[in-house]
Amino acid sequence: MKIGIYPGSFDPITMGHIDVIERALKMFDKVIVAVGEHTDKKCLFPKDKRIEMIKEALDEKNIEVESFSGLVIEYAKKKQATALIRGLRAVSDFDYEFQFALMNRKLDSDIETIFIMTRGMYCYLSSSIVKEVASLGGKLKDLVPENVEKEMKNIYSAKT
Amino acid sequence: MKIGIYPGSFDPITMGHIDVIERALKMFDKVIVAVGEHTDKKCLFPKDKRIEMIKEALDEKNIEVESFSGLVIEYAKKKQATALIRGLRAVSDFDYEFQFALMNRKLDSDIETIFIMTRGMYCYLSSSIVKEVASLGGKLKDLVPENVEKEMKNIYSAKT
Amino acid sequence: MKIGIYPGSFDPITMGHIDVIERALKMFDKVIVAVGEHTDKKCLFPKDKRIEMIKEALDEKNIEVESFSGLVIEYAKKKQATALIRGLRAVSDFDYEFQFALMNRKLDSDIETIFIMTRGMYCYLSSSIVKEVASLGGKLKDLVPENVEKEMKNIYSAKT
Amino acid sequence: MKIGIYPGSFDPITMGHIDVIERALKMFDKVIVAVGEHTDKKCLFPKDKRIEMIKEALDEKNIEVESFSGLVIEYAKKKQATALIRGLRAVSDFDYEFQFALMNRKLDSDIETIFIMTRGMYCYLSSSIVKEVASLGGKLKDLVPENVEKEMKNIYSAKT
Amino acid sequence: MKIGIYPGSFDPITMGHIDVIERALKMFDKVIVAVGEHTDKKCLFPKDKRIEMIKEALDEKNIEVESFSGLVIEYAKKKQATALIRGLRAVSDFDYEFQFALMNRKLDSDIETIFIMTRGMYCYLSSSIVKEVASLGGKLKDLVPENVEKEMKNIYSAKT
Amino acid sequence: MKIGIYPGSFDPITMGHIDVIERALKMFDKVIVAVGEHTDKKCLFPKDKRIEMIKEALDEKNIEVESFSGLVIEYAKKKQATALIRGLRAVSDFDYEFQFALMNRKLDSDIETIFIMTRGMYCYLSSSIVKEVASLGGKLKDLVPENVEKEMKNIYSAKT
Repeated sequence: MKIGIYPGSFDPITMGHIDVIERALKMFDKVIVAVGEHTDKKCLFPKDKRIEMIKEALDEKNIEVESFSGLVIEYAKKKQATALIRGLRAVSDFDYEFQFALMNRKLDSDIETIFIMTRGMYCYLSSSIVKEVASLGGKLKDLVPENVEKEMKNIYSAKT
Repeated sequence: MKIGIYPGSFDPITMGHIDVIERALKMFDKVIVAVGEHTDKKCLFPKDKRIEMIKEALDEKNIEVESFSGLVIEYAKKKQATALIRGLRAVSDFDYEFQFALMNRKLDSDIETIFIMTRGMYCYLSSSIVKEVASLGGKLKDLVPENVEKEMKNIYSAKT
Repeated sequence: MKIGIYPGSFDPITMGHIDVIERALKMFDKVIVAVGEHTDKKCLFPKDKRIEMIKEALDEKNIEVESFSGLVIEYAKKKQATALIRGLRAVSDFDYEFQFALMNRKLDSDIETIFIMTRGMYCYLSSSIVKEVASLGGKLKDLVPENVEKEMKNIYSAKT
Repeated sequence: MKIGIYPGSFDPITMGHIDVIERALKMFDKVIVAVGEHTDKKCLFPKDKRIEMIKEALDEKNIEVESFSGLVIEYAKKKQATALIRGLRAVSDFDYEFQFALMNRKLDSDIETIFIMTRGMYCYLSSSIVKEVASLGGKLKDLVPENVEKEMKNIYSAKT
Repeated sequence: MKIGIYPGSFDPITMGHIDVIERALKMFDKVIVAVGEHTDKKCLFPKDKRIEMIKEALDEKNIEVESFSGLVIEYAKKKQATALIRGLRAVSDFDYEFQFALMNRKLDSDIETIFIMTRGMYCYLSSSIVKEVASLGGKLKDLVPENVEKEMKNIYSAKT
Repeated sequence: MKIGIYPGSFDPITMGHIDVIERALKMFDKVIVAVGEHTDKKCLFPKDKRIEMIKEALDEKNIEVESFSGLVIEYAKKKQATALIRGLRAVSDFDYEFQFALMNRKLDSDIETIFIMTRGMYCYLSSSIVKEVASLGGKLKDLVPENVEKEMKNIYSAKT
């Protein structure tokens, strides 16, 4: 069974992430969406909320949502994953991803990193820009799944 | 009347910004320099000081300097602007600007974003590098307008 | 009157070019689509055909279609243009455009170069890729205007 | 069965290509190395020689080597492929690959494009640079498989 | 005597830094590794520890390790340096380095900035990624010199 | 004695090349400007003319101008050079230069490649753009040395 791991903060999950996951499902028998624990402090949503929002947004049987701590490559080995999955949106992603992939290959050469491009219409999307738009009172329709839209509204209306 | 809006933090305004504004004046009947309020916390100068410094540095009749809060695209609509103006210096700007332009187009497709390149000699200039140079005791001549140079000196001599 | 000049080979005009022209019309009172003569030898379509196809595809009163020879900046001066218009699609465009803009500014500092980003869905589009797809028997729907689609079919069916 | 298609000119196959193919074999049940026919004219080696060299260099049972003509995406559909495979070496590849992936997605949204990064030590490798080195009398050891090295020597010693 | 200055935070020194220094020694009669004081607050190791670790890792007679404060270009002038040395790893470095070099040339046109590329196998290496890997419990072998490896272990085992 | 080799086509030499050479002279006891023979066919000027123009433009005693054939790295070894010198203008140069440097290091690890940035005002300059401007009747003042300007005029007036 081919398992792909899609690691990230998902703070919150966006339509761009969902696009990558759905494309990855064509390639892998199972996709594990792996929510990093160690990024928790800087996140808008606590880890459990982030996981809950992903689960609600993605209700497919070949997807698992989990948290992980430590090096993603160690986690991938434990899960017997074939590959790490990364989304590419634009050149700015490229260098970081390159570094990430080369470092992981150095740490464990058995697990591959593959890159999937997001749909053109999502190439402006990131969790950061979603948070910025929300904090300035902008609409999140088409940027995040509906359940995330509601959660974002709760947070930012509470803030003001 | 064609109105262009040049949004930013302007913390402080540099010769590179002034270069972009002067080029933009050829294109638009009025250019509004729009100082973002929401970035106030992280700024060296408070919003009112930033506005004051821009007004002193740019004494032309087709320029307005204002602050704005919320989404720049909403502000642009309220001002009946034709376009947002952005300066391009180098590739590192490109990706962020691309994301910014695509997101704004998604939020309101009526307002265009246009890009103007700064003069070669200003392509190393940014508000951040100006603050770094000033904090290390470097000279700011030719990097910022004279009035800004004085204000920077006051701040950094006070700091030491 | 603010005149913008959009220079290029337009061999053939694509939906991406049309997108840029329509956005430019919001900024300028007149947009001159300027077809370079000197590139004629390497082109699939002769200059007159390229001009004819643009005129058919763009039937708006504020657009003029002309050919030019020599330096575009000299042509722009003769036409009393305010600015040259360039489309930006991706980073690969950036460096060439930067060089183009800086060289033109060196040759004549009165005429500005402004950049307009194409719609996300057109960022993969170029005249070259359109010709490649056509030569391999692919469909051109949504990539070029209908009249260009027909002309391309004539050429490539004649070739095989 | 998950089939991946790795299209290219392979003029000639390099150690970088082989690196990508071997990584791809972890992901797919079968990898088809697809040699483009339409690029034949500009190639150093004729199509059949290029295929023969790939077959000699890669003797694994889950690899097929074939030529194709027309659009790669049509060929991929006919082969019931899950995905197209592309190697990424550096930023210069990125834009072309982005355009390639977006255009193919436009032509057929069912077939995915995935990207695999080549090993750091191969990131300077391309068929073009291999031909340049060979034409200048440089050694090809570690750059191409041994059988290709011999073929290149024959060609370039014959040329001088 | 040709003196090169290699400025940085070195928090901590990595095998990539050492690679650049060793290459620079071929070019210069003396290389001064200049540890910036003003970055002290954000650093994992205090300035003196960073200097000590560099000295231990590099025991060659043409290398000096010093701290500096203020503008690096002023420090370079005082040291009668011929050039500043910078390592280039990837495109992401490029823009910052370009800005850094142009600004320094503006501040003092007598001192040149030269760029040396790190070995392919180190292009994923940075002090930041080393700290990230260490904080997640990963191995630092081949990433940093042995003495730094020990220091990192002390810090991160103390933290947990 | 530290010898630097600056290889290229120099078809023709530009003010940007001269800028790099003058900066390199601060670093090296001797700079050899090495004109590639193998590029002769595609060049506007024959090799001997290119060498003559460089010699006329650069009349300094620490500069040698020579032609070379074969791999530049072999030539550098024969000349007992310390390093190859390359100019960096913009990101588009970067990838090619990276490939060039890594390949040369693979072929001979003893000779270093160093990069020098051209002055901001020359970052739009290349031999190609100079030829394009000249062929379209533009002025070459400040772009190439005076002697080259004359030669270019002769060629292009003869062509028309």
